[in-house]
Amino acid sequence: MQWSQQGFDGMVDAKYDVLGIGNAIFDVLARTDEKFLADHGMTKGGMTLIDEARAASIYRDMGPATKMSGGAAANTIVGIASFGARGAYVGKVKQDEIGGFYIHDIRAAGVAFGTKPAADGPASGCSYILVTGDGERTMNTFLGAAQQLVPSDIDPAEIEAAKIVYLEGYLWDPKDAKDAFVKAATIAHGAGRQVALTLSDAFCVDRYRDEFLDLMRKGTLDLVFANEAELHALYQTADFDTALKELRKDVKLGVVTRSEKGCVVASRDGVVAVPATPVNELVDTTGAGDLFAAGFLFGLVRNAGYVNAGRLGALAAAEVIQHIGARPQVSLRELAKKAGLPA
Amino acid sequence: MQWSQQGFDGMVDAKYDVLGIGNAIFDVLARTDEKFLADHGMTKGGMTLIDEARAASIYRDMGPATKMSGGAAANTIVGIASFGARGAYVGKVKQDEIGGFYIHDIRAAGVAFGTKPAADGPASGCSYILVTGDGERTMNTFLGAAQQLVPSDIDPAEIEAAKIVYLEGYLWDPKDAKDAFVKAATIAHGAGRQVALTLSDAFCVDRYRDEFLDLMRKGTLDLVFANEAELHALYQTADFDTALKELRKDVKLGVVTRSEKGCVVASRDGVVAVPATPVNELVDTTGAGDLFAAGFLFGLVRNAGYVNAGRLGALAAAEVIQHIGARPQVSLRELAKKAGLPA
Repeated sequence: MQWSQQGFDGMVDAKYDVLGIGNAIFDVLARTDEKFLADHGMTKGGMTLIDEARAASIYRDMGPATKMSGGAAANTIVGIASFGARGAYVGKVKQDEIGGFYIHDIRAAGVAFGTKPAADGPASGCSYILVTGDGERTMNTFLGAAQQLVPSDIDPAEIEAAKIVYLEGYLWDPKDAKDAFVKAATIAHGAGRQVALTLSDAFCVDRYRDEFLDLMRKGTLDLVFANEAELHALYQTADFDTALKELRKDVKLGVVTRSEKGCVVASRDGVVAVPATPVNELVDTTGAGDLFAAGFLFGLVRNAGYVNAGRLGALAAAEVIQHIGARPQVSLRELAKKAGLPA
Repeated sequence: MQWSQQGFDGMVDAKYDVLGIGNAIFDVLARTDEKFLADHGMTKGGMTLIDEARAASIYRDMGPATKMSGGAAANTIVGIASFGARGAYVGKVKQDEIGGFYIHDIRAAGVAFGTKPAADGPASGCSYILVTGDGERTMNTFLGAAQQLVPSDIDPAEIEAAKIVYLEGYLWDPKDAKDAFVKAATIAHGAGRQVALTLSDAFCVDRYRDEFLDLMRKGTLDLVFANEAELHALYQTADFDTALKELRKDVKLGVVTRSEKGCVVASRDGVVAVPATPVNELVDTTGAGDLFAAGFLFGLVRNAGYVNAGRLGALAAAEVIQHIGARPQVSLRELAKKAGLPA
């Protein structure tokens, strides 16, 4: 079967390959043990929203931390830039030291970034991420300034200039970001562009299931990324095949990641599985899904076909889970070349 | 020959095993290439002091960065705590976001830390560290608030409570820290404790050679750590054996690290070489010397003998050079146990 990217073929040229919109979050990562998670009532593997008091309390108790810029969509766009494609990002930080780090990092990664930082209000958002010995990450996110992303932060010219607009489900959490999301999707479709969403987190899907399904069924979304837990949460079934069948009905292209089992690319024409890239040592899963999406989207904009897109996604995910933090530490373009994949 | 730690034997019990004093510096680490170093006039492998304007200029040009607490002596004390010994640290940050990160990290590592942060003056100190493909790190340090360490920050009771006071040569750079250094050494000796110094950097040795030699010859220092470049700089000779012979005359115990060639422990009774611990992949040498010192000092306070102390140093250095950043990512106590070393 020829996986020729039906519907994602021959995207006309654009200033950006992918523009991402998300919660701009600075990651504070520390190793921990299962007991810490239990003692602090944390749900392992999930992303929990926390307020400032809870953030202070968790931070006080956690171990020495590595700090890196993060944010799901931002990680993806940084990955796309690392592959050598042109990425842009929209997200809100505050004018504080952490916000300064954040803006530096996204621009230094070669990503176009122009969102005006907030002059007042809460501090730049931080996620307190606990990484257990098995490499699993448990995120506690204080949204902070990320909550101040509003529709006026969406510049229509920038949205129209991107082949794909990539959005994160987490955008449903802040008050106004959802409106920014819908505005961006509308502009993108008006310009003949594609719109992609990552479901972000199974609990996030639980919170906004009906709205996400509505977006899919109305055609606001052309491509949806999900991991198995998110897919099962979306269709409230424990049966993978049932959920996948529903996904195929609801969206033009669905990509489901299954950790070490690789991924499944589901279009209306069929389903294809792509294996994971083996890793020497699983250190920290933070950013695994984000970097998978980076590789997959890179493959799409390069017209590499779904199988190669899946391979590129697997490659990028494998890189990021072998070290602490959600941003690639080496050139993904070089990695792809070494692996004989399109780059 | 029995390497029984002559002069370092049977240290009487104390509240702390090692108390470190140093420039409290937050590390901003990014990968780069040789061209970046050349274009920015940086001396590869060295530590260069920079002012705020130069810091801003380097930071603007450097890539996405991982941020972690650092500082030579602080890294060593964190390593000692990771081995399971009792460490304390004295160093100055400002009351800003970075200073908050710094204080969290050192305390979360299990290190006693009570230095009052500066309420005004320059921001917390940062080192902009460029890591090249060969793993070598080139440091550009803006001392910031670290310059505000003064003799009154030295609490005699804390100094007297530590078996070994560990100081860094870098303390010679800020205006008043040298006086804090001398005050601490005097108190320590008055209490029958040992005083150790790391020479820090070959350029640092060039700046303060006569003063360092004077401290050694006057007996202010009982133990000196140096790498080969620092040793050669100290005695202005390219011949290792000549330099080592001089070192043995000048200090009771000298430990010289030689990268992949391991280390040499030189006391008045003789010289013993200890091999390096093999590594799978050299990622970032930042903190290699600091963590070597951590392992060695841990061995000393555990009366493990010089050979085991050297092995413990090699083990800790090997851990830290296999990832980005100068703080250990795993329990050094567990590593030592696995390697069959005293822990």
